[in-house]
Amino acid sequence: MREKTMKNLFNLKMLIPLVGISMPMSPGMAGTQSTQAIEQIINRYEAHLNESDAQSIMRLYGKDPVFMPQHSPAQVGRAAVKKAYDSVFANIDLNIKFTTYEIEIYGNTAWARTSSAGKTTIVSSGMKITEGNNELFVFKKEDGEWKIHRYLFSTTTPRQ
Amino acid sequence: MREKTMKNLFNLKMLIPLVGISMPMSPGMAGTQSTQAIEQIINRYEAHLNESDAQSIMRLYGKDPVFMPQHSPAQVGRAAVKKAYDSVFANIDLNIKFTTYEIEIYGNTAWARTSSAGKTTIVSSGMKITEGNNELFVFKKEDGEWKIHRYLFSTTTPRQ
Repeated sequence: MREKTMKNLFNLKMLIPLVGISMPMSPGMAGTQSTQAIEQIINRYEAHLNESDAQSIMRLYGKDPVFMPQHSPAQVGRAAVKKAYDSVFANIDLNIKFTTYEIEIYGNTAWARTSSAGKTTIVSSGMKITEGNNELFVFKKEDGEWKIHRYLFSTTTPRQ
Repeated sequence: MREKTMKNLFNLKMLIPLVGISMPMSPGMAGTQSTQAIEQIINRYEAHLNESDAQSIMRLYGKDPVFMPQHSPAQVGRAAVKKAYDSVFANIDLNIKFTTYEIEIYGNTAWARTSSAGKTTIVSSGMKITEGNNELFVFKKEDGEWKIHRYLFSTTTPRQ
C-alpha cells in the first residue's frame, strides 16, 4: 500500500527502490516529510531553471555547494555556482521537465537520481534544440531545511 | 592530525569536508576502513577503465546498478551496464587518472565526488583527445562488500 502511494507520488518509472530511509532519530512520518521536501526542491529547481532565475536557484543551494556543469570544471562555493548559472542563462533558455526516480535519506543527508527532458533555445541564435540529461543530487539538511549540496548532470542526447 | 592524514590519503585539493561519517552502529575505525574500501573501488575502477576491462568493472558494481554514460539514457541493471561498457570500450581507449575530493558514509550507503583527466584514443581512427570529467558515485554495502550503486559522469572539456 505504502509502496503504491510512493509510486503515484513520485512518478516511478522503474521497479527500483524509490525511497530508502535510514534515520535512527526520525523514522516514519519525518522520512516522508523529508522526501516530500526534497521532491519540492527538485520541482522548484525545475521551475527556476525554466525561468532562468539564478537568484532563486541559489536559495535552493546550501552553504558550501558544488555544481558541476558540463564543459566546465566543478564550481565550488556559492559565488562560483551563482556565476555558473548566470553564464548558463546568458547562453540558453531552458524548457525542461524533471522526472525523479529515487530519493534516499540518511539523517541530514540525501541523494536523488533524476532525468530531465525538453527543449533548449540558444539565446544568441533563437535555435531550439532537444535537451535531455541524467542528474545526481546530494542534499544536506542545514538549519532544518533541505538544500542542494552537490549536483551533477550529463547529456542523454546522442553524440552529434 | 586526523584531518592531515585524511588529506594525505585522499589527495584533497580543496578545503571542503572530505569524510563525513554518520554511522550509529560502526563509528571510528570501521568508518576509516569503509572509506579506504571505497577509495580502493575508485582506484580499481580507474585501473579497469584504463584496461578496457568491462568484466572486472562489473565486479565493482552491485546487484541493481545504474550507470549513466554520456549521450545515452540511464543504463539500469547489470546486463545493461555491462553492455554499455562493452560499447564504450569498442569505441575508445582510456588513459585517465581519478582524483577523489569527498567520500561520505552513512551506514551501508556512501557517496563520493571525483574528477578524472587524461587522454582518450578513438579506436577507429587512433586519434588521441584530451579527456576530463566530473563524477558522482553512490555506493552500497552488499553482503559486507562496498559496491558501485549509481554512477554519473560529465565532461569538463570545453564545448567544441
